[in-house]
Parts: sequence; structure tokens; C-alpha cells
Amino acid sequence: MMAESTDHRKDRLWRNARLATLSENLPGLGTVEKGAVAVRDGRIAYAGPEADLPSSLAALEQIDCEGRWITPGLIDCHTHLVYAGNRAHEFEMRLAGATYEEVAKAGGGIVSSVKALRAASEEDLLCETLPRLDTLIAEGATTVEVKSGYGLDLENERKSLKVARQLANERSVTVRTTFLGAHALPPEANGDKQAYIDRVAGEMLPVIAAEGLADAVDGFCEGIAFSPEQIAQVFRAAQKHDLPVKLHADQLSNLHGAKLAAEFDALSVDHMEYTDEAGIIAMAKAGTVAVLLPGAFYFIREKQLPPVEELRKHGVKVAIATDSNPGTSPLTSLLLTMNMSATLFRLTVDECIAGVTREAARAIGILSETGTLEVGKWADLAIWDIERPAELVYRMGFNPLHRRVWRGR
Amino acid sequence: MMAESTDHRKDRLWRNARLATLSENLPGLGTVEKGAVAVRDGRIAYAGPEADLPSSLAALEQIDCEGRWITPGLIDCHTHLVYAGNRAHEFEMRLAGATYEEVAKAGGGIVSSVKALRAASEEDLLCETLPRLDTLIAEGATTVEVKSGYGLDLENERKSLKVARQLANERSVTVRTTFLGAHALPPEANGDKQAYIDRVAGEMLPVIAAEGLADAVDGFCEGIAFSPEQIAQVFRAAQKHDLPVKLHADQLSNLHGAKLAAEFDALSVDHMEYTDEAGIIAMAKAGTVAVLLPGAFYFIREKQLPPVEELRKHGVKVAIATDSNPGTSPLTSLLLTMNMSATLFRLTVDECIAGVTREAARAIGILSETGTLEVGKWADLAIWDIERPAELVYRMGFNPLHRRVWRGR
Ligand SMILES: [Zn+2]
Ligand SMILES: [Zn+2]
Repeated sequence: MMAESTDHRKDRLWRNARLATLSENLPGLGTVEKGAVAVRDGRIAYAGPEADLPSSLAALEQIDCEGRWITPGLIDCHTHLVYAGNRAHEFEMRLAGATYEEVAKAGGGIVSSVKALRAASEEDLLCETLPRLDTLIAEGATTVEVKSGYGLDLENERKSLKVARQLANERSVTVRTTFLGAHALPPEANGDKQAYIDRVAGEMLPVIAAEGLADAVDGFCEGIAFSPEQIAQVFRAAQKHDLPVKLHADQLSNLHGAKLAAEFDALSVDHMEYTDEAGIIAMAKAGTVAVLLPGAFYFIREKQLPPVEELRKHGVKVAIATDSNPGTSPLTSLLLTMNMSATLFRLTVDECIAGVTREAARAIGILSETGTLEVGKWADLAIWDIERPAELVYRMGFNPLHRRVWRGR
Repeated sequence: MMAESTDHRKDRLWRNARLATLSENLPGLGTVEKGAVAVRDGRIAYAGPEADLPSSLAALEQIDCEGRWITPGLIDCHTHLVYAGNRAHEFEMRLAGATYEEVAKAGGGIVSSVKALRAASEEDLLCETLPRLDTLIAEGATTVEVKSGYGLDLENERKSLKVARQLANERSVTVRTTFLGAHALPPEANGDKQAYIDRVAGEMLPVIAAEGLADAVDGFCEGIAFSPEQIAQVFRAAQKHDLPVKLHADQLSNLHGAKLAAEFDALSVDHMEYTDEAGIIAMAKAGTVAVLLPGAFYFIREKQLPPVEELRKHGVKVAIATDSNPGTSPLTSLLLTMNMSATLFRLTVDECIAGVTREAARAIGILSETGTLEVGKWADLAIWDIERPAELVYRMGFNPLHRRVWRGR
């Protein structure tokens, strides 16, 4: 793990900027015109009107932002970034009219990702993952959540999580790891889901927790994956090891996964196309964040929209993420994720921007450290060549990032 | 205009590559394993199996492509790239629930783009356009078509086209310009479409043709724009000045624009969501290319799909393009255009790749010069870090371009 920066030469004052602080004490994006952000020891020492800058900070090296916008560094709070190979051939076959069976016979589906990951060395996996991470970073991402879930046995789940941790040594980025053993059934389980879940909860999770490889535990609650009872078993094991939980739920059908996750005080429920109002009310009570994943919705051509209006009505916080993965969302752009969230889900500009900053931080349990421009948090900044924040959401395939700052550097 | 390169130092042999030649003499993508491309005087001197390389070319400086794929340089055959300002605020208002009237009252709509373009100097316009062009180039584009259509008077249409021509002096890229005076009615026309079309056909077009500012003439045939009769009037003027035509047709309704354009031997008919079979048959007979624009389809949330199956049935060639414009498709990625064409329109991988290379060249009338890897054409190449061409279509927001070559350089 990388030590926090104590490089005093990077103490700086970013001035003559427009700030989208995302502070909850301010309306909308928490906008400050003629703002400044002071950085000391990698943390925000001031963020607000330049005119109100404490005199103690006026001596810092100054950088003129020439009126550019500063937002918090972007956060991708749901990715499966560590994988081997890709599923382009499967995509091609389906476009050419192949049936699900034909794709499976040709070695497609999640099993192909499991095989490829198991065959890859840690070094290979790292090399394959870094270009995807670099693409996120190039658009201003300063924090990325990374799940396991293509290993599906102890050795390979550990390998995935180690590579995820290693990413933070290779790049200036915060990585949060999530153990997703309950992602799919491995081929060697021969269809015995319960026996596999017993291993996930009873053997894999304790080792991974003991080794400190995971910051959270996730599962996939769906007919094609695991039942609510099986997910609850995994969640109880997570609680025993003091790990917070999150859940892929209600993507293709309503198994009441949202409600289940809320009962375990989940950090987030992700996907949610089929979540009902009871699930949303439970999430609101538990403070569980809704993570919407428009890339998967778009890529698999889902028709059922997530319940955005009900989430607003009950005050559930909404984050958005790439769900970057080889099977259902080969997406590595948070800017495009924002555009898809607006275009497909009708999130507002403010909701989209909060969804990749403040709410994304909340969804992975680090809102106290990042996600807004507020004193005491890491100095994670994205500085943009734009006239108004809406441009970040409106454009498609254009990156207006001027500069990115991670923990002051 | 830039003189063709005669820089002999750039004569080269790109070897140890996999080629997607897009040659029509070969099936599919015209794939050559273990291929080589020889470049002399900016043109392709050989493209085919490395083993069959003529000995006369073996002495060229060699570059080892290490098994990478080479495709023709990408071509964006339909853009409105030259514009001032953007319409992010309008996008934001609509997401927040504003009605069409409220947006119009706030100064939104195409009129806002017309005002902004008229107010901008040539230099400002150029500066605003270059980052968009650079984004296309960064993904391997070597040719870009650029339309006027936000000036809507002689002076400002000329300004737009001059800026479009200027792009080719600023960057190593081929630019083809299209006069789109018949794009929308300018505010000063006070609703008199016929009087405006008389000016487009009788005053503006002759000057623009005489000055050599346009390579083609385009129009927008739609209830909200111009009638088939008005478009025909513009097309007759184009014919008189020996300029080929193309048409925005059948995007929102079927005014039989495709059939009309085919009667004028149009290079292309663009959009085509509502085109009927009679229009498609007429296009097939005339050799008119169908240009599909998934960015606009996606951004305005159109539900009517273009008639892909009928286009295939009648053998109409299909190109795809960004339609890059501030109102309905703020898209600057041909890779994303390919993904959208596959995901939304169900084009195959081969159709998508042909759509941004060979068929895009055909749609702007320069297939004899570029669009495939064949002897005698400009050496416009895109070299990719991929294992199979499908990866260009499958990923979202990831750029695997290794290197781009424009006319040998
Ligand atoms: Zn996921
Ligand atoms: Zn257009």
C-alpha cells in the first residue's frame, strides 16, 4: 500500500477556479464562483471563495486555473476491472445471429472469463488491467472500486484481489477492493450452488478477510446466480469478519435483493432495474446507496428502467458507475457513464456529477475521505476545460480534462 | 490546400501485421494474416501477404508491427464539426424537465448555434473545432467530412467552409467539405422557406461553387426543415455546378427523401430511420450509400430503427458516422459510433468496420483514393493493439490505437 503523501513541495493553492464542491451544505453542485482550493500534506486545507481564503494559506505556491472548473476527482464505485482476455468474439457471434447455445458451445459466457483469469499469472493480469485503469484515470478518476469474481476459488480470488491492490502501487489512484466470490458458479461445482456458497462463506471469505485483501463483500442475487438465502449466508460471514456488504440485485428480475441487502446495512445495492418500492424504502431507512449501471443496461439492451423517480421520492442516494466487465459492460469511461445515465435513465446533470463523486464515495464507504471538496479530505481534484458542468454529461467521446490531482499530487 | 507528400524518407514497409484490407475482391474484411503494407510517395505500393512482397519493395525501411492489426484509416463521412459554443445548457434544461417552448425561450435550439457561429471569427471557430477534430484523429481518423449549415447566409456559410478547409492545413488529415445551406431556416427569413431556398440555390451555392469551397451539396428534407420540392431545387443548382449531392432524409418522418436523392444520383442518403422499400430500391439502383447515424438516434432517443434488413436485402452499401453536432449528436468518437451501430442497429462487426472505412469513403466520393488497403490509394492506415477486429466495435470508451499514418506519414 502506498504511504500518504507528505511531500510539502506539493502544497499548493489552486486559485481563480470555479468549484463544484459537491458539499451537502450547499444546494445543487455546491458551486463556488471565483473559488480556490488549498492543499496541504495531500489534504484539502481550504475550499471556498478565494476572497475568504485564510491568510495562513496565502503563502502557498499558487496555480492560476484561469477560470476552469474544479470538481472532486471522479470515482468509479463498481468495476470488475481485473480480468483476462475479452469477450469480443462472443459479441461478434451474437451480432451475426448466434444463439446462446452456440456462443456457449464456442466457449463463450462468464466461464470463458473464469478460465482466462485462472490461466493468467498475476503479472499478466496486472498488464491487461492497467490500460483499462489508465483510461479511467485519463478522464479524471482518482478512486476506483475493483471486484474479484472471475476466480471462483480461493487461489484465484486471492490472485484477483492482490492484482487489484497492486494497481494502487502502479498508479496514483485509490483502489477499494471487493470480494465477489458469490458472482457465479464455477464449472467444477457441477451445479451445486449450496456447496459452493458454503465454501465462499466458510473457507474463502475468512482467509481473504484475514489477509486484508478485501474492503467489502459483494454478491449476485439472481435466478442465474444465487438465491437470497445463499446471499444472506455470505453476508453473515462478512459481518462476522467486520466487512461491509453490497449486492448486485434486481437486475433481471425481482428477488427482493435490495431489501435483503438493506437488512444487512449494505453500503450499496447495484443495478436495481426490477427493485420495488418496499426495497427502496428499506434502502432509504438503512442509508444504502443505489448504484445504477447504464453501461450494462445499454450493452445488454435491457428495457426495464431502474426506478429513478421512486429513488428520488424516498431520498435514496444515487451513484453511477461503469460496471466495467468483459461480458455485459466493456466500458471504461465515467464521462460516457454520465451521458448514458442522463440519456437513458433521465438523471439530471447534478445527479450524474454527484453520482461519480460524492455518492460514489458513499457507495464504497469512503465519503469521509474523498468525493467532495471539503476541508480535511484528500486533495483529489479534476480540473476541466469547460464553461459549465453540464458539458461533462452532454458530450459523447470527448475528454475535457485539463489536469488531475490525486492526494495533492 | 496541402500538397501531397513527396517525402521519400517516409517510404516504408509495415510488416509482420494482420491486415483488414477491406478489399471488395476478398470476403468479409479482406483479412490477410502475416501481411505487409508498402508505402511509396504517400501511396500504397503493396498490401498483401508478406511472403508475396515484390522484391523491388524489399529494400524499403521496415517497421515490425509485431502482429498488430492494420485497417484503413478511419473516415467520418458525416459531421457538422465546425460550430461555436455548445448546447449543454439546453441538454441540462431538458433533463430538468423543461418543455420545448421553455428551451426555445431560453435561447436554445439550432438558432442558438446559428447566432454563436455568426458571432465567431474564423480564428475562434477554428480554435473551437480543432479539439473535436483532434479527438477523431486520436482514434485513427484520417479523413473527415465537414458540413456548413449554421451560417445560413452567404458570408457565414463561406466562413464555415473556409474553416473546414483550414482544418486540413492545421492537421494531417483529409477534409471533404459539404455546403448545407438548406439545413434550417435562418431567423431573418421570418418563416419564408421558399424565399430562403431561392437564395440558397440562386445566390449562395453559385458563389460557393465558384470559390471551390464545397466538395458536395447537402440538404435537410423534413417537415421541420425543407420540402422535397425545395430540396430538388437546391439539387438542380448543385448539378448545374457539377457538385454531387447528399441528403439528410427520413429521420423523423417519411417524405420520400431517399427516393428523391437517388433520382439525383446522390452520393448518400443519411439518417433513414423512416425510409421505405421504394426509397431503398431507388438507392440500390443509383448506387447511393446509406449513412446511418446512431449517435443522433441514441441522443434524441429515437425509437424507429433504420431499415437495416431491407438495406442488406437490396444490396445498398451502408456507412456509419458520428453526425457530430451540438444539438442532436455531440459525439466525437468513431469507435463509439461503431459500438452504437452494433448495439442499437445490430450491424455486424464487419459492417461496422466497413462503415467507417470503405463505405464511408464511398459516401463522400473518394473511394478511389482511400478507404481500403489497395495499391495506388493514399497510405492512410490505422494500426491497432488488438487481437481481433471485433474489439474495435465491442469496447466502449477505450482507444486501442497504436499508430496512425496519413498519406504515408
Ligand atoms: Zn457488476
Ligand atoms: Zn447531420
